[in-house]
Amino acid sequence: MQKVNNGKEPALKVVFLGGVGEIGKNMTALEFGEDIIIIDCGSAFPNGDMPGVDLVIPDVSYLTANRDKVRGIVLTHGHEDHIGGLPYILKELNVPVYGTRLTLALLESKFREHRMENVNLISVKPQSVITLGKNFRVEFVRVSHSVAGSCALAVTTPVGIVFHTGDFKVDYTPIDGNMIDLQRIAELGQKGVLLLLAESTNVERKGSSMSEATVGNSFNNIFAENADRRIFIATFASNIHRLQQIIDLAAKYKRKIAFSGRSMINVAECAAKIGELKYNKDAVVDIEKINKVEDKDLVIITTGSQGEPMSALTRMASDEFNKVRLGYNDTVVISASPIPGNERMVYNVINNLYRHGVRVIYERIAEVHVSGHACQDELQLIHSLIKPKYFIPVHGEYRHLKKHAELAMRMGMPSSNIILTDIGNCVSVTKKTIKFGDNVPAGYLLVDGLGVGDVGSVVLRDRKHLSEDGLFVVVVGVNTVSGEVTAVEITSRGFVYQKEDDLFEEAKEIVRRVVSHTDIKEIAGDYNALKNAIRKELKSFLFRKTRRNPMILSLILEN
Amino acid sequence: MQKVNNGKEPALKVVFLGGVGEIGKNMTALEFGEDIIIIDCGSAFPNGDMPGVDLVIPDVSYLTANRDKVRGIVLTHGHEDHIGGLPYILKELNVPVYGTRLTLALLESKFREHRMENVNLISVKPQSVITLGKNFRVEFVRVSHSVAGSCALAVTTPVGIVFHTGDFKVDYTPIDGNMIDLQRIAELGQKGVLLLLAESTNVERKGSSMSEATVGNSFNNIFAENADRRIFIATFASNIHRLQQIIDLAAKYKRKIAFSGRSMINVAECAAKIGELKYNKDAVVDIEKINKVEDKDLVIITTGSQGEPMSALTRMASDEFNKVRLGYNDTVVISASPIPGNERMVYNVINNLYRHGVRVIYERIAEVHVSGHACQDELQLIHSLIKPKYFIPVHGEYRHLKKHAELAMRMGMPSSNIILTDIGNCVSVTKKTIKFGDNVPAGYLLVDGLGVGDVGSVVLRDRKHLSEDGLFVVVVGVNTVSGEVTAVEITSRGFVYQKEDDLFEEAKEIVRRVVSHTDIKEIAGDYNALKNAIRKELKSFLFRKTRRNPMILSLILEN
Repeated sequence: MQKVNNGKEPALKVVFLGGVGEIGKNMTALEFGEDIIIIDCGSAFPNGDMPGVDLVIPDVSYLTANRDKVRGIVLTHGHEDHIGGLPYILKELNVPVYGTRLTLALLESKFREHRMENVNLISVKPQSVITLGKNFRVEFVRVSHSVAGSCALAVTTPVGIVFHTGDFKVDYTPIDGNMIDLQRIAELGQKGVLLLLAESTNVERKGSSMSEATVGNSFNNIFAENADRRIFIATFASNIHRLQQIIDLAAKYKRKIAFSGRSMINVAECAAKIGELKYNKDAVVDIEKINKVEDKDLVIITTGSQGEPMSALTRMASDEFNKVRLGYNDTVVISASPIPGNERMVYNVINNLYRHGVRVIYERIAEVHVSGHACQDELQLIHSLIKPKYFIPVHGEYRHLKKHAELAMRMGMPSSNIILTDIGNCVSVTKKTIKFGDNVPAGYLLVDGLGVGDVGSVVLRDRKHLSEDGLFVVVVGVNTVSGEVTAVEITSRGFVYQKEDDLFEEAKEIVRRVVSHTDIKEIAGDYNALKNAIRKELKSFLFRKTRRNPMILSLILEN
Repeated sequence: MQKVNNGKEPALKVVFLGGVGEIGKNMTALEFGEDIIIIDCGSAFPNGDMPGVDLVIPDVSYLTANRDKVRGIVLTHGHEDHIGGLPYILKELNVPVYGTRLTLALLESKFREHRMENVNLISVKPQSVITLGKNFRVEFVRVSHSVAGSCALAVTTPVGIVFHTGDFKVDYTPIDGNMIDLQRIAELGQKGVLLLLAESTNVERKGSSMSEATVGNSFNNIFAENADRRIFIATFASNIHRLQQIIDLAAKYKRKIAFSGRSMINVAECAAKIGELKYNKDAVVDIEKINKVEDKDLVIITTGSQGEPMSALTRMASDEFNKVRLGYNDTVVISASPIPGNERMVYNVINNLYRHGVRVIYERIAEVHVSGHACQDELQLIHSLIKPKYFIPVHGEYRHLKKHAELAMRMGMPSSNIILTDIGNCVSVTKKTIKFGDNVPAGYLLVDGLGVGDVGSVVLRDRKHLSEDGLFVVVVGVNTVSGEVTAVEITSRGFVYQKEDDLFEEAKEIVRRVVSHTDIKEIAGDYNALKNAIRKELKSFLFRKTRRNPMILSLILEN
């Protein structure tokens, strides 16, 4: 550890490159002196304002500008919003990555897709401590969450201990018997924690989250009550403990297991390889061959719990998945909550399943899902064990952060010791102070096909415009020698049926009239003014006729 | 009433033109012999697959094809999903419209917007009975719901009584003292109801809905606890009883009232005019002048509870509403649930309000909203009072209808007496049978600007394509005499930044190459094959380079 220079007290910088605000990808950097460490590097799904975008990843220009300082990336767990940005970011910033075994296994399958080799992955166990640079020591502390191998991080820095909860809940009856390490958390609190960063997802919910084991109880009832039927269970592939419960029940009820959906098959394989998921290989049937197994002897574990259009379950429900036909002897369990924004897709799948005569069991009507995030009582437990001096709520939209700050204040923390952040904020912490530093460049990059960052606000604005009002293209051929208009062609898409001949003829007349006011020979080569004039006239004509504002492209072709 | 001809027993046809399925606009027709009556005629908001669409209304071609039979339209209540289609449909089908006073008042303001006159509106009171044609007698039966003047309909037909609940809940402590007419409902049940059509919105919810009065209690606490602050309450304009509670509390706490948002101002005026909303005119301040009133003396009732982009509250939250600036002394109450699909918009507004330092109170953290729809216990009450012979669940997606059928079966109804419908279904009912008849043309028309029905699946598919991958336009100028290519121009929108000069130059080369394989003189006038060849080559080129599939328009211009 560096000595603290008492001339001007050096500060720890906490830099928010994600995890706070409406785009839910997580990334925080800690900086002290010549060292930077990164906690998580997630991706997010695009929202409705980003049509056509595949993925949203953090803007890390602050880190690439300071690349010499970056000592490594520590991962709390293997969910997309914590690891999904890594394949992109590591191409810019090749530093060691530390995480537990399952976290790294989930990550490796991403690297295979991206054909990335030579990534320096270092596996750690809960309770182990790693040293990064001269200023950071990171201890991994086991927590409960909806993916196995989740950890909080206790980072010892020259100004004190920073405790970052990662995503967590308190599960007193975890499936693998490995409980959240409350004793170590209490011990750290007793030693003294300078700053707590705690997740805020469920801060609006009273009480405590339910144990993962309650889902197993519900599943057990479903297996018992549907003894003669084929059972499908849709859940997140990464929820290894839920998969394990289904697999154990399949053994108990003597059913074969089939995995369906690419990510489900991947995760089941790689989790089995490292011993995180235990099943008898003989119990597994290939999804292609399930028609050879009787309904009562089969359980299919599938992706699609969010109604994703390309997922196995969605395609089954709309008869587009030729490996499986659904019908009256099927029971489908949707073991997940719709992520906000996915509600319609999920309910469309449920409606379609019912239309096939399927029995559907979902969260609104049975306890087939529990959240992986701490509710108010669990958050209060962590605050009371850690008893930090300073607190920054993370992992939430602004309203969650605000509610989490209020929770801390109700427990006695002075509001001056709490900071609410937005993306790009930098918070400067010493042993005795916490305050905002200068903002850093931050935000997000859009991944679309092979392009990373080339889809920006102009492209998105155009896409939105095109999607709402469609397109109207007019091409004018001009002869620069004679000054004549040789042709006017019009076409449209997403605007009105092409049948509207009258509208198009009138539009052509308008274009001809506008051009006739111009001396083509004079302006030859510089048609911007003419193009604008055409656009302007057409815009008001089309709006008057249709009350629509299509994007108008006007092109002049010389010959 | 017509005599029933016993040769072949005549049947009542129940035709579903809306109200069942995923697009939530309501419209049902009853047909017997030479008479058709229509129950409700709603509109729906477009879903994410209908970009740019303003409104979705029912396809009524079945009714216009049978226009001579249509005797009138009876309305259960004044919500958009029950009356919003009328301004469009009445232009096609000018028949009398029957409804209670507030229902018609809400409708009239629509007609004013559409500049429609000469609509035959006939005001009815609960308990009154109207005769339509030779075969229908319709009795309006008061129910509770989130808009005043809501009624169920008891329709006496030659085969028996059809009871249609409309939208309803059971509120034992209604704000205006007018309780749901359970006695009359029981009396009808005793007389014998042949067919029950009952709404299914909240069939997934156990127990009973809360009384509207509970919201008033919460509001009272909010007024008491925010005595020094300015209070905003966002709610649906049509929820007259909620407005009345706010107005009464404003009087109690000696605050002035301001109405904000066009529909709020409209509804408050027209409901006051007919006596459904009572307030002292002196207590009302124009929204333009609220800055002259002290915070503690003011409550603002506003639209925007769904986070609608153009609403007053959304614009206030994002600093685009210059009449009102929000700050630390403001409390905003969102007195509504997000309608599925609106969650993100609502939460964005809440986040922005918090960023302004506003205190925000919303459903997840306080009882500031109750549903207007019956939960399971209320539905069971109606089933037990009506005791119908046949049952068709309505007003829900397929999963709701299915759950409602299960509820009826748990109460002892045989499954053969229940029919689950989709839009366009026709159910044929006699005293002794219920079965599907032939489907009728049905579905929805999209309203976009001035166009009704001219935006169809092709236009929507193009809009979606354009929104996801953008547009790539290539124009080729050809000389039909010399066979030369005179020009190749390329432009794109929503695809990549226009900066990609190399990509464009390469694309031009490809186009020139494709055209060079063609004898222009030979094909002059018929360029479809050439256009397709250009599109095909460009498509594979662009996908290889970008992994994107923009819409490619290729145009040939002769000169």
